Amino acid sequence: MVFVDEGVAAAWPRLCAQITQYVEHLGDAAVLARTPVIIGGGEDAKNEKTLALVLAELATARLCRQSFVIAVGGGAVLDSVGFAAAIVHRGLRLIRVPTTTLAQGDSAVGVKNGINAFGRKNFIGCFSVPWAVINDGKFLASLSDRDWRSGLAEALKVALLKDIPFFEQLHASALQLMHRDHKLMNTVLRRSAELHLEHIIRSGDPFERSNARPLDLGHWSAHKLESLSRFQLRHGEAVAIGLALDAVLSQLLCGFPEREVLRIISSLIHMSLPVYDTLLEDSKAVIEGLEEFREHLGGQLSITLLKDIAKPVQVSGLRGEVIIHAVRILSEIWLGMSNLSDARPAQALG
Amino acid sequence: MVFVDEGVAAAWPRLCAQITQYVEHLGDAAVLARTPVIIGGGEDAKNEKTLALVLAELATARLCRQSFVIAVGGGAVLDSVGFAAAIVHRGLRLIRVPTTTLAQGDSAVGVKNGINAFGRKNFIGCFSVPWAVINDGKFLASLSDRDWRSGLAEALKVALLKDIPFFEQLHASALQLMHRDHKLMNTVLRRSAELHLEHIIRSGDPFERSNARPLDLGHWSAHKLESLSRFQLRHGEAVAIGLALDAVLSQLLCGFPEREVLRIISSLIHMSLPVYDTLLEDSKAVIEGLEEFREHLGGQLSITLLKDIAKPVQVSGLRGEVIIHAVRILSEIWLGMSNLSDARPAQALG
Repeated sequence: MVFVDEGVAAAWPRLCAQITQYVEHLGDAAVLARTPVIIGGGEDAKNEKTLALVLAELATARLCRQSFVIAVGGGAVLDSVGFAAAIVHRGLRLIRVPTTTLAQGDSAVGVKNGINAFGRKNFIGCFSVPWAVINDGKFLASLSDRDWRSGLAEALKVALLKDIPFFEQLHASALQLMHRDHKLMNTVLRRSAELHLEHIIRSGDPFERSNARPLDLGHWSAHKLESLSRFQLRHGEAVAIGLALDAVLSQLLCGFPEREVLRIISSLIHMSLPVYDTLLEDSKAVIEGLEEFREHLGGQLSITLLKDIAKPVQVSGLRGEVIIHAVRILSEIWLGMSNLSDARPAQALG
Repeated sequence: MVFVDEGVAAAWPRLCAQITQYVEHLGDAAVLARTPVIIGGGEDAKNEKTLALVLAELATARLCRQSFVIAVGGGAVLDSVGFAAAIVHRGLRLIRVPTTTLAQGDSAVGVKNGINAFGRKNFIGCFSVPWAVINDGKFLASLSDRDWRSGLAEALKVALLKDIPFFEQLHASALQLMHRDHKLMNTVLRRSAELHLEHIIRSGDPFERSNARPLDLGHWSAHKLESLSRFQLRHGEAVAIGLALDAVLSQLLCGFPEREVLRIISSLIHMSLPVYDTLLEDSKAVIEGLEEFREHLGGQLSITLLKDIAKPVQVSGLRGEVIIHAVRILSEIWLGMSNLSDARPAQALG
């Protein structure tokens, strides 16, 4: 059974018919339980209503546990369909076909799914290893510029944590990537996906039982910014701002070189990603985000910062004043650099 | 955070206060997020309303991923609370405190949870390993006779599949167990739990990826009987009938000795468990149950029968006529043996 993101189905109007024809062509080797189901994309896909809809479709189709559920779309659709597939009959077989840069380079190769509930992002979900993930670069052609750029934030993040040459490549080619160099983007997403996957396989904590979130540079504030913006900020955009903030925090707390802070921020600006948002000035809400981040993982609060490129360090006991100080420094850097960007508005939300 | 089965809280009126006092006594080592929450027990616990309630309690209490959720109660409450705990923050830490013979000897030591949805038993759930399981024999004292007996069906099942001396013990002490020999029941449940757990650990398929359900002797019809009876039949009672039916099927299809069929049925009757129900005569519904059983696990239908005691065999291609034939034979055996029982009504539903 196939679920297709509404946006993808609109951009590729023949896709659903092609899927049906392809499976018919396979003869006895595979049967479609029904024609592909189109579901709304974006963060709305991650609410309880969409989950209920997907569950009802799976129930009606009477899929058995060895059936395959194929989800085609952005990260939100993959998360929601993936969670439904994980809990029907205690787990159908999920094949993810991510169609955005963000999902191809990061989330789709991971082992998580989830929906938002009780006002909190990913409050409900589980760890579940997909049967397969198919990254098809062709899908990227139909992305808006905004979605095209979004995946670069996670690529930059994983480069900063693990791979100096990859960071140098991203820094050097930021403008080229922003201007939609397709071949380069495929290379970048492949490396990003590899690094994320390697981490999950080799880190020793694929299901995040410990306090540490070694892949979550820039994410504690990103999650909060997304919900504060009522999901007007894309995940990748929020991560871009979160990376800029964590770069400054790394400088303040871990001796991360100022020169690298500026290179990170200028890379993001060249990628046309936001590095600052006035939402950060609501310090009460931002500090609350830190507690929500702790709650999701549990135990002592610990965030990942950088001593140097590819030298992450776990920092605990982050205080509110330091965050406020870092936000002020970031806003100054951002104002000083704004000539670099194409006169981007003060708020990414416009 | 602690959830207590309504029936358990009623039978042990001081329990919730004792839990609170105990945790207070621990000082800084543990904190109760709130006073124990009482939730309705029985199959109703496994509906979406109860799940929503437990999720809301967990959300309000703002538990973090490293928090412990303790579920005290029968299998249904453990299943529902366990599923909620498994999907909040992608998995809180679950401690099961089973209070029935059925849960202590079987379900609570397993790695499954689930709720009923779309008219199907355990349609939604996941595999999730509990942090700990605490079997406290004291809880059994307050069980009704009917719940006391229910766990014996799963004990008999696992004995038939794996352990000749255990089967001999159950056969020899069936009346004594029915008459509530507490010490003997604890021994029986311990052995049953051990055998179930050993199977999960060593069978090589703890998360049931294959077609085979080697522990599910008697279960394909039991699940259907439960729902046909609108859950008036307890799971253990339905399994007792399912075991009797599968014993006859084993004789018809696998050369299982008739003498053993009769010993199994007389053991069940001595335990005051049902071995037949007129619901079995709705052959269309029963055969439908076979398909639902297949659907849950997927792939080719395969059920577990017996060549001999402790010699299980996978049988595929079970045909409707054979089932109808077996039901008729079982009804005759049951009529012939009804002098053994305390004049049990023709329908367990009475």
